[in-house]
Amino acid sequence: MTWTTDNQKNLMLFSGRAHPELAEAVATELGIKVTPQTARDFANGELFVRFEESVRGSDAFVLQSCPYPLNQWVMEALIMIDALKRGSAKRISVILPFYPYARQDKKHRGREPISARLIADLLKTAGADRIITVDLHTDQIQGFFDGPVDHMHALGQLAGYVCDNYGTDNITVVSPDSGRVRVAEKWADALNGAPLAFIHKTRDPLVPNQVKSNRVVGEVEGRTCVLIDDMIDTGGTIAGAVRVLKDAGAGDVIIATTHGVFSDPAAERLAGCGAKEVIATDTLPIPDDKRFENLTVLSIAPLLAQTIREVFENGSVTSLFDGIA
Amino acid sequence: MTWTTDNQKNLMLFSGRAHPELAEAVATELGIKVTPQTARDFANGELFVRFEESVRGSDAFVLQSCPYPLNQWVMEALIMIDALKRGSAKRISVILPFYPYARQDKKHRGREPISARLIADLLKTAGADRIITVDLHTDQIQGFFDGPVDHMHALGQLAGYVCDNYGTDNITVVSPDSGRVRVAEKWADALNGAPLAFIHKTRDPLVPNQVKSNRVVGEVEGRTCVLIDDMIDTGGTIAGAVRVLKDAGAGDVIIATTHGVFSDPAAERLAGCGAKEVIATDTLPIPDDKRFENLTVLSIAPLLAQTIREVFENGSVTSLFDGIA
Amino acid sequence: MTWTTDNQKNLMLFSGRAHPELAEAVATELGIKVTPQTARDFANGELFVRFEESVRGSDAFVLQSCPYPLNQWVMEALIMIDALKRGSAKRISVILPFYPYARQDKKHRGREPISARLIADLLKTAGADRIITVDLHTDQIQGFFDGPVDHMHALGQLAGYVCDNYGTDNITVVSPDSGRVRVAEKWADALNGAPLAFIHKTRDPLVPNQVKSNRVVGEVEGRTCVLIDDMIDTGGTIAGAVRVLKDAGAGDVIIATTHGVFSDPAAERLAGCGAKEVIATDTLPIPDDKRFENLTVLSIAPLLAQTIREVFENGSVTSLFDGIA
Amino acid sequence: MTWTTDNQKNLMLFSGRAHPELAEAVATELGIKVTPQTARDFANGELFVRFEESVRGSDAFVLQSCPYPLNQWVMEALIMIDALKRGSAKRISVILPFYPYARQDKKHRGREPISARLIADLLKTAGADRIITVDLHTDQIQGFFDGPVDHMHALGQLAGYVCDNYGTDNITVVSPDSGRVRVAEKWADALNGAPLAFIHKTRDPLVPNQVKSNRVVGEVEGRTCVLIDDMIDTGGTIAGAVRVLKDAGAGDVIIATTHGVFSDPAAERLAGCGAKEVIATDTLPIPDDKRFENLTVLSIAPLLAQTIREVFENGSVTSLFDGIA
Amino acid sequence: MTWTTDNQKNLMLFSGRAHPELAEAVATELGIKVTPQTARDFANGELFVRFEESVRGSDAFVLQSCPYPLNQWVMEALIMIDALKRGSAKRISVILPFYPYARQDKKHRGREPISARLIADLLKTAGADRIITVDLHTDQIQGFFDGPVDHMHALGQLAGYVCDNYGTDNITVVSPDSGRVRVAEKWADALNGAPLAFIHKTRDPLVPNQVKSNRVVGEVEGRTCVLIDDMIDTGGTIAGAVRVLKDAGAGDVIIATTHGVFSDPAAERLAGCGAKEVIATDTLPIPDDKRFENLTVLSIAPLLAQTIREVFENGSVTSLFDGIA
Amino acid sequence: MTWTTDNQKNLMLFSGRAHPELAEAVATELGIKVTPQTARDFANGELFVRFEESVRGSDAFVLQSCPYPLNQWVMEALIMIDALKRGSAKRISVILPFYPYARQDKKHRGREPISARLIADLLKTAGADRIITVDLHTDQIQGFFDGPVDHMHALGQLAGYVCDNYGTDNITVVSPDSGRVRVAEKWADALNGAPLAFIHKTRDPLVPNQVKSNRVVGEVEGRTCVLIDDMIDTGGTIAGAVRVLKDAGAGDVIIATTHGVFSDPAAERLAGCGAKEVIATDTLPIPDDKRFENLTVLSIAPLLAQTIREVFENGSVTSLFDGIA
Repeated sequence: MTWTTDNQKNLMLFSGRAHPELAEAVATELGIKVTPQTARDFANGELFVRFEESVRGSDAFVLQSCPYPLNQWVMEALIMIDALKRGSAKRISVILPFYPYARQDKKHRGREPISARLIADLLKTAGADRIITVDLHTDQIQGFFDGPVDHMHALGQLAGYVCDNYGTDNITVVSPDSGRVRVAEKWADALNGAPLAFIHKTRDPLVPNQVKSNRVVGEVEGRTCVLIDDMIDTGGTIAGAVRVLKDAGAGDVIIATTHGVFSDPAAERLAGCGAKEVIATDTLPIPDDKRFENLTVLSIAPLLAQTIREVFENGSVTSLFDGIA
Repeated sequence: MTWTTDNQKNLMLFSGRAHPELAEAVATELGIKVTPQTARDFANGELFVRFEESVRGSDAFVLQSCPYPLNQWVMEALIMIDALKRGSAKRISVILPFYPYARQDKKHRGREPISARLIADLLKTAGADRIITVDLHTDQIQGFFDGPVDHMHALGQLAGYVCDNYGTDNITVVSPDSGRVRVAEKWADALNGAPLAFIHKTRDPLVPNQVKSNRVVGEVEGRTCVLIDDMIDTGGTIAGAVRVLKDAGAGDVIIATTHGVFSDPAAERLAGCGAKEVIATDTLPIPDDKRFENLTVLSIAPLLAQTIREVFENGSVTSLFDGIA
Repeated sequence: MTWTTDNQKNLMLFSGRAHPELAEAVATELGIKVTPQTARDFANGELFVRFEESVRGSDAFVLQSCPYPLNQWVMEALIMIDALKRGSAKRISVILPFYPYARQDKKHRGREPISARLIADLLKTAGADRIITVDLHTDQIQGFFDGPVDHMHALGQLAGYVCDNYGTDNITVVSPDSGRVRVAEKWADALNGAPLAFIHKTRDPLVPNQVKSNRVVGEVEGRTCVLIDDMIDTGGTIAGAVRVLKDAGAGDVIIATTHGVFSDPAAERLAGCGAKEVIATDTLPIPDDKRFENLTVLSIAPLLAQTIREVFENGSVTSLFDGIA
Repeated sequence: MTWTTDNQKNLMLFSGRAHPELAEAVATELGIKVTPQTARDFANGELFVRFEESVRGSDAFVLQSCPYPLNQWVMEALIMIDALKRGSAKRISVILPFYPYARQDKKHRGREPISARLIADLLKTAGADRIITVDLHTDQIQGFFDGPVDHMHALGQLAGYVCDNYGTDNITVVSPDSGRVRVAEKWADALNGAPLAFIHKTRDPLVPNQVKSNRVVGEVEGRTCVLIDDMIDTGGTIAGAVRVLKDAGAGDVIIATTHGVFSDPAAERLAGCGAKEVIATDTLPIPDDKRFENLTVLSIAPLLAQTIREVFENGSVTSLFDGIA
Repeated sequence: MTWTTDNQKNLMLFSGRAHPELAEAVATELGIKVTPQTARDFANGELFVRFEESVRGSDAFVLQSCPYPLNQWVMEALIMIDALKRGSAKRISVILPFYPYARQDKKHRGREPISARLIADLLKTAGADRIITVDLHTDQIQGFFDGPVDHMHALGQLAGYVCDNYGTDNITVVSPDSGRVRVAEKWADALNGAPLAFIHKTRDPLVPNQVKSNRVVGEVEGRTCVLIDDMIDTGGTIAGAVRVLKDAGAGDVIIATTHGVFSDPAAERLAGCGAKEVIATDTLPIPDDKRFENLTVLSIAPLLAQTIREVFENGSVTSLFDGIA
Repeated sequence: MTWTTDNQKNLMLFSGRAHPELAEAVATELGIKVTPQTARDFANGELFVRFEESVRGSDAFVLQSCPYPLNQWVMEALIMIDALKRGSAKRISVILPFYPYARQDKKHRGREPISARLIADLLKTAGADRIITVDLHTDQIQGFFDGPVDHMHALGQLAGYVCDNYGTDNITVVSPDSGRVRVAEKWADALNGAPLAFIHKTRDPLVPNQVKSNRVVGEVEGRTCVLIDDMIDTGGTIAGAVRVLKDAGAGDVIIATTHGVFSDPAAERLAGCGAKEVIATDTLPIPDDKRFENLTVLSIAPLLAQTIREVFENGSVTSLFDGIA
């Protein structure tokens, strides 16, 4: 006699404590519940997690956004993955809407770490089989993980919003520095072939963050400038860019970013920098005290939910982006 | 013609930012300097480290203690190791005077992580070749790391202090719970064969931390009790144990521990619990606001320095402990 | 046209030659057959195994108990796992009712192996995806394996037997040494909060096995003592403990253990040591010449069968132990 | 609410560009289509591959034969595997009808590579879960891969053809050198116990390919000799063997080989060497300019198709060879 | 008695067959000889390598440039590394002056490989401990290798040449597309803060290589344009960029690149595109038939030799670049 | 101040308990002592090892021969390696004069293990950096280990002895089966180009060990036959081969083998089989009760000692064999 069973699999969604609202929104989109868990902090900062339902054989998706204090949330994700691995989950996909340490994706100078690669290796070591993420600081970070990376783009949503609200006739897409021009070009393609500009910073090569001067390269006079970036942290660079554009005679300036890190004093800076509107998604939590009047937040939850569905059902994630993902 | 060189190696000591005083004390013992580095926090909590001297070919020792906020220091250690690996250090030894997540060394119930093993794997992945640590919560944690672990013991120092100050005639060694009795037995051996006692907690198996009652097992009446533990976090358990001992007629109670975590309200609790003296080492930083009148802190720096010297010069670490290490 | 098939899986049970009776009992519980195989010894001790049915795509469970000569059975398990891996089994779970080398779970002194970790790594290397085991010498051994470990407990069965036959009113639970007191405490909880005692051995730290004296810590006079241990090998320690208890005025002494290793002269020692009854399970084979009059053997087969069923069907193993596994 | 789905899997066949006719023939046998892909060469020799359909969750079979220029096809296979891994294929089986670098399966002298092992490791690193191959140069190469290897044999087909066309009465099986005698013995078994012979080459041990003399060992006079080899590259050895056999008085000589590498000037040599017929399979493409009058090519496609089917459906590959595979 | 020896190490340089002139030039700089080896091609394309001197314990540097046919040279490098590993070299550093498959450093669309990561993993698997390379297509590729990467820059040499021959007064640095603007900015810094421009290509997002239009962004009229790129393959893009610049009124156009791949018809295109001078290094061999009148080739050998020396002697490679490496 | 030390290394030789005489002989050749250790068997067969001197930083050589009971000695070697790794040995070379499970170097039929590969992986997992071994059953086993394998040959010693005692004029080298003919050919080369013969066994392919008939292929009448094999276990095959040769009219028969396994009833069989002399080496212990009158044992110790010396001093092992190793 043999004992045979259908090899069904079931989707389970887990959420770290960094951004539970996003997990709830994704769960609602999928019509499921976030799996309940016990999560605690010990007094010295050690974390503890325990799932309240059996995870055995599940197709587990762990959603953890990484706002401040980022290292805590990274460690919580690793611990959750470890618990899933030891609890016999069948497959573990980690959803990092904002990939931590993405800016440290290379050695800028000697004797530096490559922390973005380190993060990928730590996730693999803990037991992650797959990463799902949104708008990596550089696309090459995909290659840091030894396994499938589903790389989502918020460009469609963000550019759609700009189109609907500002049209494309008088738009110039502006990269705040020389390293984002390629991304700005994608925006230009999405905005009906709009022209490009960027801010050229003259640097002293031995003092990395000391910029000597800023010049606008490209035509911005009288144009509605869409100033884009993958993330805005303290807002210093982007607020400075608005000033440079205004000085160069730009018309309205719209800021669009995927990741609203908004560390202090970003809210203040952005509110007062002269931009007409700041558009961001909720890949990171944006609590009320970080919000300001001209801020618009678009929800990334539908995109994440759709991706989870395709991954779970072995559909095509690529098709979500008309072939570009 | 061939090009040959003597394969000299040189010792370099690196310090995370968690406990620089200890690193300085160790460096002083060794007669060297801690290697200067740039270490920064980004506004969202991401860390950055860069060494200011070439580390190529060095025998690198990274000292990082892990007080609150522990996850930050763990990640800093991992990032330093990554930078050393990519900077071509020859061998990387990580000194963790207090091993993080040591209490989560097993699944107490189903669907839990084993975070102490995870930490060992993360260190290995980042590039650590060896771990040097002091008084692990359980000895088995040595086996979590795939490589050499030099496991130091503070027992000699602590017990020596007790001997010198209290003698051994009227001493009873007390374990605060059933899991530390084996360690208490080692103390008893070190204190001239002193008798043992422990506190028996009756638990409800389904509510892990709910203790029904505490009974002293062993004779403590009129005895000077040395209450031992590997670490004291918030001090609740240990302060409770003092009360139970006092209720059972104990004489003076001395508390001895290797790791003074001393999370709030430990200082207050320990100062007021009725213990005559609390003895700890400085494996973790104990800032002034955590200190209290009857606290004695012994320095672990000489032991760490001696261990580093033996490791660097391929001497015998075992001999530091008369064969037991 | 696409070619799609239901991804059914089927359970196959394999048995090493160390304890075929247990495998048969488990198979009977499950209503399946042990997969037939050819297993041979070459004259120089090399082993050979070949399965007589296709194992392709199976959910394979390999049951190997490890009595004397233990290394042979460890190697047979490794070779069976290798053959399953190369024969395309989908998943390989190794059932080790008695985990080999569990006593060598740490370096007691310098320059020693940690053989229990080595065993976990060897199993992983051969191709094991999961370990199922019973009452590890220390719980931390779970963390030695890089993957799921289902850790079963015989406590429920053993304590239930004691309850049924001796009640709980006059019981004291006794640990034979300081390292088992935590386990004894779990027994005490299971026996309605019975009091605890243990035997304190004074040792010379440089001569590991030379004990200077034995003292009972805790009240045993006139009590029915349940002397517990995870395994009994030659029986010297446990028989000595009975004597110490009797000398201290104990009433009846009952010995309870999960693993009856019973190496010579255990049977003789236990039969004559003065214990009223010795209770063990059949995690290891106990042939007739190792049995003695007052020995009771409880079968572990139902517990193993239930565990296999839950693992195969992605049920919850934790639930078998009311949440504690 | 839980979300559960049947864990169906679907077979997808991918073909490198080395031997598309074989992939088409296999697909036809299976009644499926080869998955369409874009494959390009950059001007400097770099390759590019992109699949035109989603591969997510598929049971992927990558067929790549490795004729000249072999390294290009090896790299193409590795790149296809990488793309499948990153595209979330569930399982990746690589079909190498001719295993590359099989002749370098050991160090013949010091300071040599073992390229056949290297190939196995490269495939594993890229993401291959399984290898399917035909008539390895030595059986031990199976052990170079850390995972299942399905090793097919063309002997049945080739020997059947010989039987049908030449009978077995007057046959002698001849190995062209001392290293193939074991394989020749298997042929002899398949040809009704025919007698054996081989060509003994006297070598200078320091000049690997310099043969001093060739002697036939075994009786060949007046016999129909079936000269066998796993592969024929430039045909020098085998054509020389025919001459030696003829000189020794052999009757007809039939050459049978699995892998018709047929590098120049093999076609010319084989056509003119005096053999009555040369029999090969199409594990490698044999274009028209490599074919010659007395060449017979048997198709390996049915065997590969049947193997794929058994692997996909978790049947028994062993059964395809009456237990010997 | 103990047997102790000084652990001297000796430098050995090995060269693949792709670019022996460069290896000779490096050896001459170092005052050593390239280690002699036997390297052969089998008729079907398989490669064979054997070293003619013992490599045991050596600090081995394997120099392999990767021109067309690139896959052959990649495989030769892997095989050489394998032979060194098995021949007991102490440490293996691979020098890839031109990193193969660097352009495939991310998935541009779904179901693509990340071949640049694959190459890093293949090198690691074969046994490489370190990579030394020059001007990676993107800096992030450093993070693809799990170990030290010494990343050299030819910018100093190239920009110095431009400075010496064209001054910096009327220079504009031009990136041929949006993805190289960051690198152009580094050039601008090196050329005394020269202004920047780039060519904006409007693309159809679904047809990757189909560019709709090219616009110059930035001021180029009357300026001497230094058009930079990391590599020039067939020269189509760069020659087109010259035309666009000329159309926009640029003065002289100088082309500067590190890697002169120069696949057909690059020589013809570059000679006739209107550029005043084309400057490249010899990271790749540039045979006579690829050379043309206004081509200047600078030697990378001194830089590689200096790097090898620093690596061997545990000096600082970072210092070669004033801290930026 | 920096702290620098000469990176001296020292040779330490360790011996398992399987063949201490060989280790002593090797140590004497090298003029060193075998490092003292404590090794014990627990009653249930578990092994324990502890080294009595510090092994930190040593170049460790572990010699373990593997006679019956082989699995015990394999496990002892693994445990010794683990203890060395955890005790910080710098490099661990394992000397296996007789490689265990070498006969299981492939799947002879489906669903079999490849135990020889498994052994290589187990050694690697435990921590072995290198294997030194003698006359592998097949050369391909070198490729099973992921690292350097120094493969020694006893052919020179054995053939030299035959030459000295029997000359080469009337010699025929005989392989006992079709799989050893290539090795016999090497013998023939070493014996001045002597002729070859082998025994052709007709088998039923479905019953692996059932041989239908034995025929001598090659001329043996009146010749002094040197019957060679890598190992002789129970002696059945080789004694049968002597009979077949005698029946075919052979003159004297000399048996030469590297590995004298000599399991019962080998001594009896070989003594009475009609062979004039049996020559073996001491790669395995041959106790007195396995010895017989016409047995000659040559010592392998000088060869092993010379190999250790070359490995330790980074000399050339290849040169020991005139380039063939």
